[in-house]
Amino acid sequence: MKTLWQHCHVATMAHGKYSIIEDAAIVTAGGTVHWIGPRSEALVGEGVAIIDLGGAWVTPGLIDCHTHTVFGGNRSGEFEQRLQGVSYAEIAAAGGGIASTVRATRAATEDELFISARKRLASLLRDGVTTVEIKSGYGLDLASERKMLRVIRRLGEALPVSVRATCLAAHALPPEYKDRADDYIAHICDEMLPALAAEGLVDAVDAFCEYLAFSPAQVEKVFLKARELGLPVKLHAEQLSSLAGSSLAARYQALSADHLEFMTEDDARAMAAAGTVAVLLPGAFYFLRETRLPPMDALRQHGVAIAIASDLNPGTSPALSVRLMLNMACTLFRMTPEEALAGATVHAAKALGLGHSHGSLEVGKVADFVAWDIERPADLAYWLGGELNKRVVRHGVEVTAGELTRG
Amino acid sequence: MKTLWQHCHVATMAHGKYSIIEDAAIVTAGGTVHWIGPRSEALVGEGVAIIDLGGAWVTPGLIDCHTHTVFGGNRSGEFEQRLQGVSYAEIAAAGGGIASTVRATRAATEDELFISARKRLASLLRDGVTTVEIKSGYGLDLASERKMLRVIRRLGEALPVSVRATCLAAHALPPEYKDRADDYIAHICDEMLPALAAEGLVDAVDAFCEYLAFSPAQVEKVFLKARELGLPVKLHAEQLSSLAGSSLAARYQALSADHLEFMTEDDARAMAAAGTVAVLLPGAFYFLRETRLPPMDALRQHGVAIAIASDLNPGTSPALSVRLMLNMACTLFRMTPEEALAGATVHAAKALGLGHSHGSLEVGKVADFVAWDIERPADLAYWLGGELNKRVVRHGVEVTAGELTRG
Ligand SMILES: [Zn+2]
Ligand SMILES: [Zn+2]
Repeated sequence: MKTLWQHCHVATMAHGKYSIIEDAAIVTAGGTVHWIGPRSEALVGEGVAIIDLGGAWVTPGLIDCHTHTVFGGNRSGEFEQRLQGVSYAEIAAAGGGIASTVRATRAATEDELFISARKRLASLLRDGVTTVEIKSGYGLDLASERKMLRVIRRLGEALPVSVRATCLAAHALPPEYKDRADDYIAHICDEMLPALAAEGLVDAVDAFCEYLAFSPAQVEKVFLKARELGLPVKLHAEQLSSLAGSSLAARYQALSADHLEFMTEDDARAMAAAGTVAVLLPGAFYFLRETRLPPMDALRQHGVAIAIASDLNPGTSPALSVRLMLNMACTLFRMTPEEALAGATVHAAKALGLGHSHGSLEVGKVADFVAWDIERPADLAYWLGGELNKRVVRHGVEVTAGELTRG
Repeated sequence: MKTLWQHCHVATMAHGKYSIIEDAAIVTAGGTVHWIGPRSEALVGEGVAIIDLGGAWVTPGLIDCHTHTVFGGNRSGEFEQRLQGVSYAEIAAAGGGIASTVRATRAATEDELFISARKRLASLLRDGVTTVEIKSGYGLDLASERKMLRVIRRLGEALPVSVRATCLAAHALPPEYKDRADDYIAHICDEMLPALAAEGLVDAVDAFCEYLAFSPAQVEKVFLKARELGLPVKLHAEQLSSLAGSSLAARYQALSADHLEFMTEDDARAMAAAGTVAVLLPGAFYFLRETRLPPMDALRQHGVAIAIASDLNPGTSPALSVRLMLNMACTLFRMTPEEALAGATVHAAKALGLGHSHGSLEVGKVADFVAWDIERPADLAYWLGGELNKRVVRHGVEVTAGELTRG
């Protein structure tokens, strides 16, 4: 069964550019793009369903390639305390910060985690997301990381979105391993990763390389184990300091290195050579009121693919919209709307190892797209917050409002 | 007919504070709040309809007290050009900036303006707004300002929102008055304001006091005419420089002075004495990447009521969500979530001259409220973008999704 989608313009995002087709048509069949081009050249055979998109602008479905959507509790109370003048140190002393999210996540049942995460994920989806990556990393023990990863798999079954699950056991040191980071890393490598991978719960392995988290040497142990298990890696790197984590990631052919405010030109060179995507997270930059910008010029010069993601998490980026991240990428990082949109489509797909199948509208790729009621593609990065009228198509079938009910 | 709304907590915002009632009930009758208090004390008489709010947090409906929702075209093309390296000067030389919005607004039919504004307004409403102020000011001649103000009135009839219309004819100098600002001000005072007021299209009068717009002396002429016509005034003041416009506004008992990054302590003193509300616009601050913060400490010290608004406009704040403005007020201006929420409810009502009837949930006030699926009131300022589950009640009646269809 084929469907012809017409009366639209398309920004295909092939090769990371708008690559605009005005007055276009898309033929989908079996969930993929069968044909795409000017409407005047479209062949309408027998039995092809025709859908009028009313002059909309079509883009690939948005891809949020870095989120921590699953977590217990939230940290709005801490947000409020900080604005009332309570210091970070006082909050940490009172058990706040990531430790409170770990406690709440460990205490929550799988159903509780599922229900709260489904609401947040539905918010991303209503704003045009069709593929999302979600990390574990608030469990920090085998049972709790498994619980998070199972919730991540369930989310992909419950909502019309393709979900990639990343194991981020090396996110923070759990309290029971206080002052024994090497032991925790050994536990991750010897017990957690092999078990979780064997259960089919892991699509990629991530770690947090930072002076307040894990050292490059510790991260490398995790990467070696991932390689042994046949899993691709990613890395939280250079957010607060320069540890050459992104160069390390490149040496392991990481799919992406993420954050990167403190990366060097050497890191950019290494990432470009390895094809490692730079995932920038403007929501965290904004929320933490950072001032050190990622080295945009170095990334562009060396030809590193740049992705943009929400980093949706309770502590540093409670962001429920990728479109808002496009605006922040432009406003704060001075990316162009075209770069920003590429960052949430074709480059985001690459950051998930899905570059062959997702992220642009080309023959043979998955038919995930959004038909936006806008005047030009730049509108997606221009409007601040709120909601834009749209129709979302996933695997060649239109998503209904009912499917996005947030429970 | 009375309705009892129960199974909720309420942040009443009386006196500008959360003023929390846990496990509360609200009785509405005839569109107003008939009773509010702890559920255990609510009297349920015969024939009272009972509605279960499922444990939601109830706040007053959000009030966006400063918007330019009605305009022709949009400026995303200019946004994109700037990020591609085109200078402001080049854009202005090519007829861009506010001049392009004036041209597009003049060229648009009333229906075209209505349809595009309805979409934007619906986006604000879906995020919890029940009262909005909308300014004219892109027409800059009698017929075009009238057209805008008629659209503003129509919006209030078409959507479930209370709309206040502000005449901002003194927004910019129209091209036909080049180098004749005094003549344009005279035209506003002698022709435009009297005619538009006589037609019942104006609830308040605003002006833009800035070195690149109108001088305090010119603004004062507009204020004198407004006083003669019995209309309250407001003022765009101290956004880019210090002209004591906010003190001038206070001398005319202005409802509000807006923007205010460059206001002085003297201005704050004058505003406090006059009861003039300080309307802060964090979206414009963010979008223009300003660095000069409004003087929060002076405003607090002198007891000036602080409101927060979207400033929704195509050039400097294409913001479609008041909730995002709450986050920006906290993140960028270091307001507390409680101050921010007061800024979009009780203080915003005061900035519109509606303090007696709107902005807080108290007996006798209008029954406009939102029941949010959140854990605590601070969540409204905490989450970044996206959409929160909610039920919106206006004049004691629940607003349906269908009423918010964006055309
Ligand atoms: Zn992260
Ligand atoms: Zn304004």
